[in-house]
Amino acid sequence: MKTINSIADMQAFSNAVRKDGKRIALVPTMGALHVGHLSLMRKAQDMGDVLIASVFVNPTQFGPNEDYKAYVRDTEGDKMKMVKAGVDVAFFPHADEIYPPGFETYVEVEELQKPLCGRFRPGHFKGVATVVLKLFNIVKPHVAVFGQKDYQQLLVLNKMVRDLNVETEVVGLPIIREESGLATSSRNAYLSDEEREKAVSLSRSLREIKKGFDDGERDTQTLVMRGREILSRACIGDIDYLEIRDGETLEDKKSASPGDVAALAVRIGKARLIDNIVL
Amino acid sequence: MKTINSIADMQAFSNAVRKDGKRIALVPTMGALHVGHLSLMRKAQDMGDVLIASVFVNPTQFGPNEDYKAYVRDTEGDKMKMVKAGVDVAFFPHADEIYPPGFETYVEVEELQKPLCGRFRPGHFKGVATVVLKLFNIVKPHVAVFGQKDYQQLLVLNKMVRDLNVETEVVGLPIIREESGLATSSRNAYLSDEEREKAVSLSRSLREIKKGFDDGERDTQTLVMRGREILSRACIGDIDYLEIRDGETLEDKKSASPGDVAALAVRIGKARLIDNIVL
Repeated sequence: MKTINSIADMQAFSNAVRKDGKRIALVPTMGALHVGHLSLMRKAQDMGDVLIASVFVNPTQFGPNEDYKAYVRDTEGDKMKMVKAGVDVAFFPHADEIYPPGFETYVEVEELQKPLCGRFRPGHFKGVATVVLKLFNIVKPHVAVFGQKDYQQLLVLNKMVRDLNVETEVVGLPIIREESGLATSSRNAYLSDEEREKAVSLSRSLREIKKGFDDGERDTQTLVMRGREILSRACIGDIDYLEIRDGETLEDKKSASPGDVAALAVRIGKARLIDNIVL
Repeated sequence: MKTINSIADMQAFSNAVRKDGKRIALVPTMGALHVGHLSLMRKAQDMGDVLIASVFVNPTQFGPNEDYKAYVRDTEGDKMKMVKAGVDVAFFPHADEIYPPGFETYVEVEELQKPLCGRFRPGHFKGVATVVLKLFNIVKPHVAVFGQKDYQQLLVLNKMVRDLNVETEVVGLPIIREESGLATSSRNAYLSDEEREKAVSLSRSLREIKKGFDDGERDTQTLVMRGREILSRACIGDIDYLEIRDGETLEDKKSASPGDVAALAVRIGKARLIDNIVL
């Protein structure tokens, strides 16, 4: 596996690959790689001739009181995992090259960034859209793969790419869950054993909503209430949101229909966890 | 000359050109081509193997009370001029394909967009940056050429390209002036003969500032006052701004230095005219 740090080297590499008529697949990550990431990488292998994975903990997508500094960094561990997952090139850019002094250009997907996580993490999706557009301009992937756990992120990036005529296909792949149902996340590392048990109620709550929907319930308030009850029985009080929204536009729904998404964000101890299920 | 209208056709054409290892030069315009544009096109011929010129009157860079509807459109005339100027491909995209329903992604160069024209045309540079990024993603030019009359636009686009790691070189070329000194502009068409005479004072005012600077005056207030006097003697009362700013950062200056820019925007009749001079 080749490791690249500088933007110019990465661009030169990708330009050469493209000139050879080869396809580039990219898996952008913030590192602290877990089985969810590795699953993305393995699946991305079939999507291109060259598999590039990037690791960049992006400061602009963290709020001032969020866990940018505490976020797990494990460069050597990540590299070993990437080798095993069949990555051809690991791109580890430096924050001071991605955001040089005087950096001031940002991309916003103005509507899709507003609800759900956008309401609780102002500026988050602006940071995500900006850094991903930069990564796309640097790595020039034909296809880029993201996890569906970050459901809103996936919609935001898909919209950005279409609106700005970026010729990169954005692909979302299913959430990878632990046996307990807990969605894999780098932030699960923040959880104590006790908190991890609590966190199992997130996916249970979403499955309860899905079950209600499958049983014929359509009223979103009723469905959400059933989900909330599971969270409250697990003593999860710090809920940013638990909502059912249109699966493409994220518009509010009174009556649920197939393709809608039930999504939640809760805080357990030091971790803010998100999860979702498509109805 | 080949004419292309659809985004997909344009991208396919440019991808093929790039695969051949050829360089693409782009001159983005809003049409109503005048000798200033044609000079850009002629000079851009030497910058690439394929010369593409686009014509798109971009709705998002016009304010609600501005001249979007009145802006001169002359597709056939423009095409004839482009042929003469050696353009290989004329790209005339449609507004409803550039901005399809639900379009919501915008790019902002947050600081450089604020002063000068930004203060009087809120949203203008957001519209400019967004459409130019789209054009760059569609046409994929190695180099794109703009006139220095839109001095702030040139800085904004240069910054955007660097901040977002777009591999297009943005080149600014000198203002083309009529014999009277009036900078060529599509909006000069709005002027009556009398107004056109008045408008000559714009460049005279800037030359007066430059002369003062060359004679050793450094105080920007004094220099600007000398320029304003010329405008007021020509009975130009509707001045959006006449300022001296740093030529790269557009920061306010108390004392002028070489490389600073004296820039103005005034309204004469139906026309809002801009001009500038580098000290």
